[in-house]
This record gives sequence, structure tokens and C-alpha cells, in this order.
Amino acid sequence: MTPILATDAARAGAILTIDLDAVVANWRQLSHQVGPAARAAAVVKADAYGLGAERVGRALAAAGCSRFFVATLDEGMTLRRALPEAEIIVLSGPLPGCEEAFPADRLLPVLNAREQIDRWRGLADRKGRALPSVLHVDTGMSRLGLRYAEAESLAEDADCLAAVAPVLIMSHLACADDPDHPMNRRQLAAFQAARALFPGLPGSLSASSGIFLGRPWHADWCRPGAALYGLAPNGAKANPMAAVVRLDGRIIQVRDIDAGECVGYGSTHRAGHRGKLATVAVGYADGLFRTLGNKAVGQLGEHRVPLVGRVSMDLAVFDITGLPDGLAAPGGLLTLIGPGNDADAVAAAAGTIGYEILTALGQRYHRHYVGGTP
Amino acid sequence: MTPILATDAARAGAILTIDLDAVVANWRQLSHQVGPAARAAAVVKADAYGLGAERVGRALAAAGCSRFFVATLDEGMTLRRALPEAEIIVLSGPLPGCEEAFPADRLLPVLNAREQIDRWRGLADRKGRALPSVLHVDTGMSRLGLRYAEAESLAEDADCLAAVAPVLIMSHLACADDPDHPMNRRQLAAFQAARALFPGLPGSLSASSGIFLGRPWHADWCRPGAALYGLAPNGAKANPMAAVVRLDGRIIQVRDIDAGECVGYGSTHRAGHRGKLATVAVGYADGLFRTLGNKAVGQLGEHRVPLVGRVSMDLAVFDITGLPDGLAAPGGLLTLIGPGNDADAVAAAAGTIGYEILTALGQRYHRHYVGGTP
Repeated sequence: MTPILATDAARAGAILTIDLDAVVANWRQLSHQVGPAARAAAVVKADAYGLGAERVGRALAAAGCSRFFVATLDEGMTLRRALPEAEIIVLSGPLPGCEEAFPADRLLPVLNAREQIDRWRGLADRKGRALPSVLHVDTGMSRLGLRYAEAESLAEDADCLAAVAPVLIMSHLACADDPDHPMNRRQLAAFQAARALFPGLPGSLSASSGIFLGRPWHADWCRPGAALYGLAPNGAKANPMAAVVRLDGRIIQVRDIDAGECVGYGSTHRAGHRGKLATVAVGYADGLFRTLGNKAVGQLGEHRVPLVGRVSMDLAVFDITGLPDGLAAPGGLLTLIGPGNDADAVAAAAGTIGYEILTALGQRYHRHYVGGTP
Repeated sequence: MTPILATDAARAGAILTIDLDAVVANWRQLSHQVGPAARAAAVVKADAYGLGAERVGRALAAAGCSRFFVATLDEGMTLRRALPEAEIIVLSGPLPGCEEAFPADRLLPVLNAREQIDRWRGLADRKGRALPSVLHVDTGMSRLGLRYAEAESLAEDADCLAAVAPVLIMSHLACADDPDHPMNRRQLAAFQAARALFPGLPGSLSASSGIFLGRPWHADWCRPGAALYGLAPNGAKANPMAAVVRLDGRIIQVRDIDAGECVGYGSTHRAGHRGKLATVAVGYADGLFRTLGNKAVGQLGEHRVPLVGRVSMDLAVFDITGLPDGLAAPGGLLTLIGPGNDADAVAAAAGTIGYEILTALGQRYHRHYVGGTP
């Protein structure tokens, strides 16, 4: 079992600050945007995108969020301990042999395949009562969910439907981050066709980006995740969400470098002139991807400082040449994610998306929560 | 605090198998290779490259390893609880204000800068006794360690040396994975020059790859990490190390796909013909990098199956068209890292190194240890 490290901020190689009030503000903003016709749940899978599902969940529940989505049964069981009252929906559904754990913790499975439906119905039959669930129909991801023909045959099976007692029908958009992508209208039409098979059943189609496609995509329930955590949900436009995450790395050493000297593995950076470097205790083992070598930018006060050389496992080196004396000192902090350099910007430098920057955030960070419930 | 998930293998989206006997065999092989002139320590930083420092540490200590390297004070404190007797060396050295924690847990700091030396000496003076340490001289990484002139001035300061009582002088190679790189000889010469300043002090220069550069690079102590965990230490040549890691992802759903249908976000994969897909409960939140979209390969029995479409946060989809019926079923396992597809091969597909594949291994995996101490 992995130990929980860095409980003491002074010892930590980096401090991850998570603004729970900003998470709540983002949820309220999205709720307002889709309401009153639709409501907003909260997606807290992958440990709330690496930010801590229990803390995020408690803050959102206190703000009035009643419905939460997680990816796995284990995540659902963990979240149940933090949120005794909330509705918790498990996106991956029941794995064979794990069905009993769902009603034991009042977790709702998403039923993604006929095979999952049959097992869930078997459990309902054994228990002699209907067991609520969420139906997932695929509309173009080819990842999870019933095909249209499967949904059609389920809709004709009244006994099965009574047993698995769906409370929601959902699907997932493949290209919602690109508002002009033809898939968005195609998936909306496919979702509406599937919904017509189950009259009266509330629907859910959109995650963060889908919300910004407009009212038709909102259905009854939206499932924001990324936008709650401050990631830009709407591609090229200005990010309307409040910033949630800040990451400050600890400076271990400040050193001189002469012209011609090299930095890091593979000697990929060679100093062009005499200068100064700051070595920070954050590396790729902490989620600072190796792809950020010679590409990331840190901040020291108002100054932007480039990461030079490759990212090491536990260390990264920044060029602080020409900065005012005393701005960088051992034990001080250099900002890796923050205002003017948010997770989306770091992702762009790394060649990925902000989602992956957040979920890769490391276990060695000291985590400092701002706001939320006590 | 992040909860520890997936304690039950049946519920887990993936099972990570770690062969502690193979770790021990690798350490013995390297010890033999560098002995008797030199000895092998063990690098267990970053939670033993993601494999569990406590379990790995206990297995190696039982096999006779007496000296361990970690990256941070927190890692040292955690490892001390598992290894009451071992010598534990903290590579990042003491951060300002954290000096006292080192003698409290009998941790040896690496002193990387004059500033760290001065603080360590201050502690020794306050305690009225010598406090052992490890000296780090930089020989070409420009990352951590004293410059030659700083080492020279320290060597002339007998009082300081008596107080910080070095037991080892170390440096680190920048390009050891490339045996022909001119940096290797340059750094060896620089290290020998620095050692000459401290007659009689044992030296340590090489990590895994450096060991394979040959005897002159072994000095007195080698510091293998990657090679202990089965990563190839010697670039292009056949990997001489025993395999340590296996990763099996859980199949959630097996589904049909028609010609022309798309898979995953951005619709980056379009099926050319009618076929079958397996959706597996492992995604980039588990360290299956997004760069592996349309590039990774899984294994089902003897069959290699390509990952199709983008990697999602919690899911990845594999094309299992044409495989024998029944080979892939919900609840079954599909191998992501294993024989014929080791961490180095996955890294090559992802455009990185095996080290980053290991340190990114996810928190949601069920971890199954083979061998080692009970």
C-alpha cells in the first residue's frame, strides 16, 4: 500500500492548493446556466480529477449537489463514507461477482451492456425487489453503452425494465469540445431516438463541454467534471470558470552556470551565457510530464522562468538568470500551475489536455484546501 | 487525503503484479556484477518507482541490501518505519527548517549545496557532535551538487568537514544510457578530480545505466534503481534484467462495431469493417498516457490487440476482431504490461522512457505482490 506522504507543508517538495469555494462557485454557475429546465450533477471520478473526491464531494453536497458520478465501485464505496445521503452513480457498472456491493452501499450502477443488465436483473430477482439503475445508450463513442437495437429490445421487455428500474437514461458525447463537429448533432439525434423508447425517463447527455453546446444538449441532467475543476469547457473561447488549482514547487538549490555547461539528462540544454538556475523538487514522478522538458514555464513573482533541460523523476531545473537577487532561495516556492499559467496552458505545452494534467497530480504533494466545509 | 482504493482484486479495474523475487534477483545480479570491488545500494525513491518502497525495501533488506536512497525527507521517514536498521540516504538534502527530522529518524542527508552544508553544520554545532552526511559534487548535470570550486573550498575547511562528517561522495551521470556519449568520460574525470580533494572518502557515481559503462564508473557504491525494477539499463542491447511488473486491465464490456462507426473522443478511429471491441477499465488517470491513443498494444492470451481511439480518463478500447470466441469476456483481463510488452516497449509507444511508465502507475490498481518477505 502506498503511504500518504507530505502531511507537513514545510517538508513537502511541492504544495498543491485546491480552492473548494471555486469548485462550488463553478458548480453553481453551471447549475444556473442549465437551470431550471435541467440540473447539474457532479462528476468526481478519478478522485475528483486528482483533487480529492471526499473533500470536493462534501463541499458540493453542502452547496446542494445531490447527484454524483464516479468511475468505479471502489470510488463509490469510498465516496459513500464521505456522503451518507447523496445519490452516487457508478459509471463502469457492476463487474461480474460484484453486484451485491451496490445495494449494500446504496450505489446506483450504470448498466452499459445487455450482459450487465441481465446480471443486475438476476440480483433483483434474487432479492425479490426492483433495484434502481441508470441506462447507458451509446450514440457514437463505441466505448460503453447499449447499441440502439439492444435498447429497442430492452424497451420491449417490461419485466426486465421493472426489475432494473432505470431512474435515468444517459449517453456521452465524443466531440463536444469542438462545437462545430458534426458528431454533436448526430449524437443528439441518436440520443433523442433512444429516449423515445423509454417515455418519461429523465435523460443525461452532456458533460462539461456539452453544456456549452446549448439547451438541446442539456436534457434533464448535466454531468460536469472538468469545468468544476476550472478547466476550460469551451475550447477556443475565454475560460468562464473560476481557477481551482495552484501548484508551487519547492526550490532545493540555486546555482550558477557557465556558458557552455549543460543541464539535465541527455545534456539537451546548453547555457548560452553565464547565468543562474533554480532546482525544484518536482519531477515526472509527481506528474510533471517528461514532455515538458525545455517547454514548461514557471513563475517567480511576476517573472516567467523557463524549465531547461529534461524533467527528471524528482527534479526540474528553471533558468532564473537576471532575476532580482533574493527572489529565488532554497526553501522558497516557484509556481508551476497558477494565474497566467493554468492547467490548460501547462497541458498545451505538454501536448495533452488539462484533464490529464490534473489526474496526474502527484501523491508527494502537500495538499492545501481552501474554503469548502470544515 | 487520497483514499487507498481497490483492496479487493475482484472489484479492481486493473491488477498490478509486482514480483519482489525478481527485484531481489536483479539486485543480486548487479551486486555480483560490480563486486567485490564495489557494492550495490538500492534506489527506492518515488515509492520505489511506483512499485511500493516499503515492500521493495523489506525484500531487499532481507536479501542483504544495507543502503537505500530516497528522494525526499517524507520518503525517508516512511521507509524508516519499514526498515528500522537500514542506512537511508535522502537525495534532496535538508530543506530549511527541516534539519532536525534527519537525526530524529537516523536519515543521512545528501548535501547538495554550500547552503545545505552550512545549515547541516549549524545543526551539528547546536547538538555538539558530528552529524554524518553524503557530499554531492556536480560533474555535468547542473542540477544538484557542489561545483568544483565549492568542493575545493570545503576540502580546505577542516572544522566544517569534521562537523558534517561525510561518509560518501557522490555524483550523477547525465548520459549513461548512451555508452558512446562523450559526457561519460568527462564526468568520470571530473568525479575523480573531486574525489582527490577528499582522500579516503568512498565514492558513488553510477545508477543503473552507469553500471554497464564498466568498472571505472563503479567507484565504491553503485545506486541502481531502474534496473532493479526490470527496466533495460543498457539502451539498445538485450535487457539483462528479470521482469518485475505485469499490468492486467479488466474488461468491462465486449461490443460489436459496424464499418464506419467511430471509437472514442474526437472520433480518431473509424472501423474499416464490422468487428468487435473490448472496453477496459484503465485510462489516463491510471497512468495509461493519452499519447498511447491508437498506439498501445494489449495482449489476450497469445494475441496482440491494438488500442483504438483515444485513451479516456478511466477507459481504453481494444480491437479484438477475429479473436476466438470467449477469449474476451466482461470481468476478464487484458494484459497491458507483460511478457513481450514490457514497460520499455509501452514507453517507446508513448514516446517516453520506462521510468515514467512505472512512476505513473495508478492508485486505483489492485496491487498483488509475488515473493519477497511475508
